[in-house]
Order: sequence, then structure tokens, then C-alpha cells
Amino acid sequence: MKQYIEQNRDRFFEELFSILRIPSISAKPENRPDMERCAARLAELLLEAGADTAQVMPTAGNPVVFGQKMIDPTLKTVLVYGHYDVQPPEPLEKWNSDPFEPVIHDGAIWCRGANDDKGQLFMHIKAFEFLVRSGQLRHNVKFIFEGEEETGSASLPAFIKAHHELLKADVCLVSDTTMISDKVPSINCGMRGLSYLEIKVTGPNKDLHSGHYGGAVANPINVLCEMIASLMDADNRVTVPGFYDNVVELSQADRDMLARAPFDMEEYKNFLDIDEVKGEKGYTTLERTGIRPSLDVCGIWGGYTGQGAKTVLPSVAHAKISARLVPNQRSTDITRLISDHLKKIAPPYVKVEVTPFESGDGFLIPITSDAYRAASRAMAQVYGIEPVPSRGGGSIPILAEFQKELGLDPLLMGFGLERDTIHSPNESYLLRQLFAGMESIVLFYQYY
Amino acid sequence: MKQYIEQNRDRFFEELFSILRIPSISAKPENRPDMERCAARLAELLLEAGADTAQVMPTAGNPVVFGQKMIDPTLKTVLVYGHYDVQPPEPLEKWNSDPFEPVIHDGAIWCRGANDDKGQLFMHIKAFEFLVRSGQLRHNVKFIFEGEEETGSASLPAFIKAHHELLKADVCLVSDTTMISDKVPSINCGMRGLSYLEIKVTGPNKDLHSGHYGGAVANPINVLCEMIASLMDADNRVTVPGFYDNVVELSQADRDMLARAPFDMEEYKNFLDIDEVKGEKGYTTLERTGIRPSLDVCGIWGGYTGQGAKTVLPSVAHAKISARLVPNQRSTDITRLISDHLKKIAPPYVKVEVTPFESGDGFLIPITSDAYRAASRAMAQVYGIEPVPSRGGGSIPILAEFQKELGLDPLLMGFGLERDTIHSPNESYLLRQLFAGMESIVLFYQYY
Repeated sequence: MKQYIEQNRDRFFEELFSILRIPSISAKPENRPDMERCAARLAELLLEAGADTAQVMPTAGNPVVFGQKMIDPTLKTVLVYGHYDVQPPEPLEKWNSDPFEPVIHDGAIWCRGANDDKGQLFMHIKAFEFLVRSGQLRHNVKFIFEGEEETGSASLPAFIKAHHELLKADVCLVSDTTMISDKVPSINCGMRGLSYLEIKVTGPNKDLHSGHYGGAVANPINVLCEMIASLMDADNRVTVPGFYDNVVELSQADRDMLARAPFDMEEYKNFLDIDEVKGEKGYTTLERTGIRPSLDVCGIWGGYTGQGAKTVLPSVAHAKISARLVPNQRSTDITRLISDHLKKIAPPYVKVEVTPFESGDGFLIPITSDAYRAASRAMAQVYGIEPVPSRGGGSIPILAEFQKELGLDPLLMGFGLERDTIHSPNESYLLRQLFAGMESIVLFYQYY
Repeated sequence: MKQYIEQNRDRFFEELFSILRIPSISAKPENRPDMERCAARLAELLLEAGADTAQVMPTAGNPVVFGQKMIDPTLKTVLVYGHYDVQPPEPLEKWNSDPFEPVIHDGAIWCRGANDDKGQLFMHIKAFEFLVRSGQLRHNVKFIFEGEEETGSASLPAFIKAHHELLKADVCLVSDTTMISDKVPSINCGMRGLSYLEIKVTGPNKDLHSGHYGGAVANPINVLCEMIASLMDADNRVTVPGFYDNVVELSQADRDMLARAPFDMEEYKNFLDIDEVKGEKGYTTLERTGIRPSLDVCGIWGGYTGQGAKTVLPSVAHAKISARLVPNQRSTDITRLISDHLKKIAPPYVKVEVTPFESGDGFLIPITSDAYRAASRAMAQVYGIEPVPSRGGGSIPILAEFQKELGLDPLLMGFGLERDTIHSPNESYLLRQLFAGMESIVLFYQYY
């Protein structure tokens, strides 16, 4: 594969860039045509790579790309999952270059989606192409690329339900996560689920003069801040009743195993430029993101946010609140618990509306499977060191659906690194990870 | 004056509209040319109305318009203060018509500045014009219109210091406040001061994936909310140490006098569409805005505020915080107290920066003065009922400067009504208040 990469490098970039340039932002309705374009281009790339069929299939939301090459029903079938939608690029002013015009410098591709997930799904298309063209393909391969991962995969559960036969496979192979570092490869063996809500607090029915009314009428921003502040206690535990009910406490042995993952607190703090970390009492940083749920305000806005000093007692304040969940916490339950709690603690002098958004459950992956072992062996060969089983803090909610509906365990061979700052400005993907990923995937097929 | 208004009605609207159409938003640097245009137009109007001289005078910030007609140094001199700058019109989508294109309907002029303060200062120009043209002027009259009231009158103190002689007068007449209602005229005999700060809370040095970091790294929005929530206690008292130190507790007699002002709680709540009021324990609604200081968040922003469900653990969160102050609280002291307190309560896992903005002290006006009595008599004649002395919750910080520097007591004959929703979308000014104001001002000169 190394040689194949060398020979086809320029074409690879050209192809990858053709999808990176499409602003397939699923959160923005106005980008809907870009979703269609991006899906169509991916179907093209699958056919060019050697798929027998590849098509853009409609859903209630953004289309799904499905392609496959079935060579022998008695052989194992690998279903590759990825997503072609990306996060909004905002704040735009923090990007060093156009978020949808990929550039290569400092050994990386810089673009929204360079890693998450266009760059990572592209590795699978090229690994597949190599296996086909070199006559080494020994598996049936299916590809499913969705366009709503970043907004909660709303349409995919119905699609999975409607296409059991089409999606039937032995493993669901996914590259949409990070490794601990490029010196310490890891394979994700669990991910967190997600609940997401928007809260709107309305005080008076219009913006008021803060002099005429300040002190006498509840300010919805102050009230929203009080409500948010009350969601965490002094031990940094979430105060929503029932929030921890289904959280499994890990045994000391399990925690010890997790603690084997290398972690350098000084490096971590330096990378983020913070003086101290903050999190739930009694847990380490890796545990806080790996095995414990969390609650974050992803956005807040209200009142006058322009330049200068406008005095106003605003009518409305908003916040977007997300919770990351661990296996056994059902996201629909948690979303309801948070929503009910917010309404319950709403004081009588404001009106509170809560809108639930995407949600998805967390899951665990057995590390004893053939697929896990093949992936581990492949990555060990490429990186020269055995990958560590790790728990990712992020969420790919739909993978729990694959597990439940199709009995299909996901295998998370992710080649991203924290330095890639996915979801943030200046997302990038290291070329050496892109290529090491392709090599690892080819070897995975060899050992699986 | 009634007849004069009738005869000149169309010209009055034309002249007033010519200043309303200029977007003289002092908070926005890009509107600086509009400040110059508006000032020049006001100087023109003063000359046309009969001023001997009127000029646009530079300051370190937006220019001051000064005009005068000196008829006899032995007569009393009235200094009319007003401001030609306006609040930003945002949120634009809430306006029923263009904020800078005045329209007349439902008996009112609708436009940013229709009341605050272009509409109100215009009454003084026209009352003056009538007195000049009808040969009834028996006072020296000076006008000072500034362009930075809405941002804290930063340049005016130096201007006042540099022009003691020019501004010398017996009273400072101001129409920039509201009456209790158009059935219950009132004269403001005290205003609150103002402190205004912006706080910036920085967590990690970049926006982070809330899955990878959520629960392990402090979220600056959550921290900001906790800090804001901690600024008020369960009795709705401000927790900043020293905040109430110089607040004068009123005697029961004084509170009883204030309680004479008519106030209908149901009407108040209906007007604002709120189920309950909220304020400092132990005080009535009118006391909470009249004689007690308050603290409000005027704006807050951070993280993802667009459509949909973007998950992010943001790097930065901001808020604009204002405090309304009562007489004896020095705004510079309070600004420092709040700023110091915010820095002190900042937890070690974030960085906090505080930027002070405008500030100004509150003041009290003696109701035994000749000027107050003349105003009271004038308004009683126009409204058919004696005006109530009231305490305004708003702030005109510069008036305390006039008092301190020139020994000049302000007289607040305000003709605005709460329904005018100044500082908010769809600001308006009732025509009958515009004209009653002109009549009252003419009578004021007669009785003073």
C-alpha cells in the first residue's frame, strides 16, 4: 500500500479535496444542495474505486450514500460507516485559511472535514481501491456514508430498519475517532452518548430600559445563568435528579486498566493553556471523559452583544446544553430528565421553553472479537507498538443503532489526533496519519 | 402655543424627521459621520429657531452642539441639555418599520430616537422658537446637545470643565425622562447612577470537542453563569462586598411620600406579560427602581449560537453587566468593587478579564426650588393635575457633573411614557405628549 500511495498521491489529494471543497454543513438548511452534491461525488468515488454499485439513497433528511462490492457470499462482509456532513465552520474569523478550501502545509491538510469525517472515510475508499486493483480483496465490502451525523443522525434509524438485508455484515468498521497520540495508537472500545437541548427563557415581553425596570423585573439572562449554575454541584456532579441512575460504576480493576493509557497532565494543560483542570470529584481526567457523563453549555446568547455599552433588560435569553452519556444511560431518558428538571426549576417570573435536539446512546465494544484483534495487529504493524484499548469521550450516536438493530458491533479504528481540533477552527489532518490509516486498513482486511 | 403648533405642525414634523433619519448611534464607531451630520443639522435648527449663535464644537469624542440667545445679563439663564445620539436599533427583526425612517400612526411617531432624546429635545427648540417669534422671551437661553449620552458622556466632563463661563446658568432644563402616565404627570426629582462593565472568561485556548473534553475541562460559559449567579443572593441583594455601603436608607416618611405615586401592579405585570415581579426583599416595585441600586446582565454570548445542534466546549464567554446606582454611591467606586469582586471570584481554571465602560453618579433634585415650582405649575396647567415628584430608575450620568462642576441643579421635565419602549424595538413618542411638552415648556418659562 505504501508504494501505491506514493504513486497515486496527487490523485488522492485531488479526489479528497473535491469533497472537502463542498460545504456540507448539516446544521444549516441552506446547505441542503451541498449535501446532495457531496453525496453524488462520493458515489462517483466509490464506483471509480471499484464498487459494483453505488447510489445516493433518499431519506427523510439528507441522503445516504450506499455502495458495495460483493465477491462471495461465503466470505466475511465488512460494512464501512462514515459521514460526509461537517460541523459549521464558525467562528470564521479564527480560521487561518478558507474553511472550505483545503490547503497543505506543516505536514497536514487544513480544512473543515479534513479529519471529521471526510478525511477518515476517504482512507477506506482508497484502501478498498488498492485491494480491488491489486487483486487482494478477500471480503465483501459495503459502504454507508450518512449526511446527518453532526446533527444526530435523525434519519438513519429508519433507513437501517428499512434496509436490514442491504446492511447485513459481520462488522461495522468506522474511522471517526482519535488515537491517544501518534506515538500511542489506540482503538476506541466505548463511546459516550449524547443529549442536546436548547432552552429559551423569556422574562418581560419586550426588551426594557434597564434603568426603568432594573431591580424590579426578572432579567432572563440572570435567571438563565442561575438555572445553568444550579445544574452542577460543588463536586462538579450534575444535579439533575436521576442523571446518574444508570451509570455503571467501574471496578477498580477496570479503572486500573484504563489508567494504563499514558497521560501527561502538564502536556494536557499546556496544550489547552489552562492552569487547572476541572471535573467530577473522585475521578481522573481520562475517567471524566471516558467513563463518566458530563454536562456542558455549548452556546449562550441574549441581550445586547454588539460593541459598546448598551443598557437593556432583555426579553429573552437562550442556551444550548449538551450532556455526554455513558453506556446504560438512555439518551432519550436523560433528555427528558434534563428537560423536566429545567422546567421544574424555572422560577415563576419567567417562562421557560425547552427544545430537545439530537440524542444517541453510548456503547461498549468487546475487545475480544476477531475484528478487534485484526485491527490491533494491523495497527501494531504500522505503528510499531500495540494499540491501547481506550474510551472515547465523543459520541457517534448511530453506532448504538447498528448494534441494536443489526447486531453489528462497531470497530473504531480512528486515526485523528487531538491536535486536529475537529469541530473547531483550523481543523486539520496529518498526512502521515492519513497514510498510516490507509495502510492499517489494508492490513486489517489481511488479518480479519 | 397651541395655535402655533397647529399652524406649524407639518414644518415641525419635517424638521424633527430630518434629525430622526440620521442614524446617530454613538455605540458604533462606523456611525461617526452620522454624529457630525446630526450635530450640524441641530445647529441649523437652533439658528432657524432664533438663536444668536449655534455651533458644532469638537470634543475628544462626538461633537457638542452649543447655541444661545442672550437678551439681558440681569435676567435668569436657562441651560437646556439634551442628547442627539441614540441607542443601537438591534434586534432589527423586531421593528415593524425601518428604525431610522419615522412614520406616524396610532397617534405617535415611530422611530429610534422618536422620544429618546431627539423628540424630547426638539420640544425645547420649538418652545424657544415660539417665545422668540412671539416676542415673549424673558430669559437668556442656552442649549447644549451632546452625542455620547447613550455611551456614558465620556467627553462631556472635560468640555464642561473647559467652558464654565459659556455654560453658566441658573437651571439645567432636561427632557429625557418619563412621566408616570399621561394621566399622572410627574417630575423626576432623582435619578440613578450607572456602572457598566464587560467580562470575558477564557477557558481553553481554543474551542474544543465537547465529547473529548467535556467533564474534564472547565467550560467558560458554565463558569460565567456561576459567577453571574453568585452576584445576587436569595433576597435578590447584590453580593459584591461594599456595594450597599453608601446607600442611604430612606425614612418611613420619605418612603410614604414615594408610595403616593399611583401604581397598579396588575397593569404593570400585564404590560410586561409577566406572572410575578422580582426584586430586592423588603422593598416595593417603585422603591426597587427609585431608591435601590440594581444589577443586570445587559448581554451575554459565547459558543455556538447558530441554528441546530453544534457540540462545542467553547474557549471564551462574554457578558455585559450594568448596575444602577442611587445617590451617594460613587459609580467609579462601584465599578471598581464589581471589577475586583469578579476577578476575586474567578476560579483558577479560567482567565477573567474585566473592562469598565461608562459610569456616572446618581443625584437628587430639591423640589423646593423656583424652577421645580415653575415646572410643576406649568404641567399642572397643561395636564389639569399637579405633577407627582418621582424618582426615575434611569441614569443621565452627566447631570451629576453639571451639579458638581457648575453648581447647576437639573430640572427633569420628561414627557416620555413607558409605552414608548425607548432602547427597545419600535420606540415611539405620542404626538399629544410631544405637543403637551412644548406647551408645558413655554409655560415653564412664563412662571420661572
